Amino acid sequence: MKAITLANPDDKTSLTWSEAPTPEPGTGEVLVEVKAVGVNRADLLQAAGHYPPPPGVSEIIGLECAGVIADPGDTGREKGERVACLLAGGAYAEYVAVPVGQLLPIPEGYSFAEAASVVEVACTLWSNLVMVAGLHEGQTVLLHGGAGGIGTFGIQLAKQLGCTVAVTAGSAEKLATCRELGADILMNYREEDFAEVLKNRADVILDIMGAKYLDPNLRALAMDGHLVIIGMQGGVKGELNIGRLLSKRGSISATGLRGRDLEDKAGIVAEVVEHVWPMLEDGRIRVSIHRALPIDRAAEAHRLLDSGEVTGKLVLTVD
Amino acid sequence: MKAITLANPDDKTSLTWSEAPTPEPGTGEVLVEVKAVGVNRADLLQAAGHYPPPPGVSEIIGLECAGVIADPGDTGREKGERVACLLAGGAYAEYVAVPVGQLLPIPEGYSFAEAASVVEVACTLWSNLVMVAGLHEGQTVLLHGGAGGIGTFGIQLAKQLGCTVAVTAGSAEKLATCRELGADILMNYREEDFAEVLKNRADVILDIMGAKYLDPNLRALAMDGHLVIIGMQGGVKGELNIGRLLSKRGSISATGLRGRDLEDKAGIVAEVVEHVWPMLEDGRIRVSIHRALPIDRAAEAHRLLDSGEVTGKLVLTVD
Repeated sequence: MKAITLANPDDKTSLTWSEAPTPEPGTGEVLVEVKAVGVNRADLLQAAGHYPPPPGVSEIIGLECAGVIADPGDTGREKGERVACLLAGGAYAEYVAVPVGQLLPIPEGYSFAEAASVVEVACTLWSNLVMVAGLHEGQTVLLHGGAGGIGTFGIQLAKQLGCTVAVTAGSAEKLATCRELGADILMNYREEDFAEVLKNRADVILDIMGAKYLDPNLRALAMDGHLVIIGMQGGVKGELNIGRLLSKRGSISATGLRGRDLEDKAGIVAEVVEHVWPMLEDGRIRVSIHRALPIDRAAEAHRLLDSGEVTGKLVLTVD
Repeated sequence: MKAITLANPDDKTSLTWSEAPTPEPGTGEVLVEVKAVGVNRADLLQAAGHYPPPPGVSEIIGLECAGVIADPGDTGREKGERVACLLAGGAYAEYVAVPVGQLLPIPEGYSFAEAASVVEVACTLWSNLVMVAGLHEGQTVLLHGGAGGIGTFGIQLAKQLGCTVAVTAGSAEKLATCRELGADILMNYREEDFAEVLKNRADVILDIMGAKYLDPNLRALAMDGHLVIIGMQGGVKGELNIGRLLSKRGSISATGLRGRDLEDKAGIVAEVVEHVWPMLEDGRIRVSIHRALPIDRAAEAHRLLDSGEVTGKLVLTVD
């Protein structure tokens, strides 16, 4: 088969579509013929050598895709079935082996490209907001980077859950996008101190900044609030004011999807299919694809995402 | 009635048994005639002005007691019923008003003094280990201060839950006490680095040291582990290595019992009566009273507890 690999291991931009061994489906796995792949920031990190795959996982980049089952292996699934896949790696390829618990149906009315673009974000948001932090109706949630991929999906999901949604973003245009999607409290982090604006009101915070936002997030947190850190764009080590956390009976979790075991992932996927897929199918949550490119132009897609100019998802298609 | 108050507000040792207004039971409260009161480290903090009661709570010290219902108020409970009580304050007195959800039966075979000595520790341990951190069979729990009041009860409770129990303490004698109670992994913190010994193995850690132990606790934490901080004897602010927390998908909660709302407390009390009281009644968990003193000697009891020489619980009795 063909897959994206680094022509020059020292050059993260040297992504090339070249020959690679076709994976064999293991016990409890199917082989999927890939039709479309979602591009994630984590893919850029992995290409740059900063986000190695968990033990036993393909070295090939790519955390989500959609396609058809080419070989059902021992799973009892149907050859030819159209599926979306949550992956720890391997999606930038013609074929990928997928644990059966990480297969999702294609949402009704969705193309392969659209389906490939929603798996990672839906699983990330549902697992962190709902399963880790217990977000529920009537609560206030703070989403940093409200206009990004996680933010735009998260705003719509949290509104569907009956929450008040606060967001930060870096421009009036981005905040306007957030407002259109339903965000209630809009904060330009270049002009406002979100901790002061939200002070003690955020029941749940989904953070991608890590150290830089640790203390302001704690100041924004409500009693019994939960800060969930899924990125460290603002640094790895920060001062924790335990007294402040204790005064709010607060919790901090730092989590990721990729390293979870099969059982965890299957549990997350099942909840996402039950709760989030219907919201996609009837349009309560809308996703926008910024651009779909043939997979041999993966390097171009990575440059685009790295530029910060992308609003909406980038998808790679495989013929 | 009589109650313990500070004769000289500037002298935390001037605890005297003197006249105070008898409380009136409010809506959903009973008036309890106090027979015995458990002494907690938090009482010393409050006497020293460092742990003020939550809004609306009696200024009188005391977080747990046992006695009889003197006035059932509007609750439908029976006058003369023997009860143990979880309190946010007010126990160092002849009478205390108690929300009905914070009444527990006296464990079968227990004296008032014994009952008064177990409420706070049982509710603290159950709420934090089980309700906050989800401790369950097969997991490893680390208890700091294994020979103290929380430690000695916690070792026995965690063994009953089917856990491996690791403890720290500051002497061979204290560790011997922990071993007799069932602790599996004994660490003298003066001689050993508990983080190195337990490295990545503690599913749940109950911490009373705060900042000083923040990083070693994270190093000891297992994948998906949960650090629960209930004290800050080692400082309020510490550096949090978010990368380390993320690599373990870990959680940190900082919690307390006293400020929780009535519903939360009633929920905790109900679970404690269901799950922990039977363990007291059939001797699976044993408690030891170091000494019972008449309540007019409260100052002496505080001095004793402050000395660090106490193994087991101090109780004050009211005639």
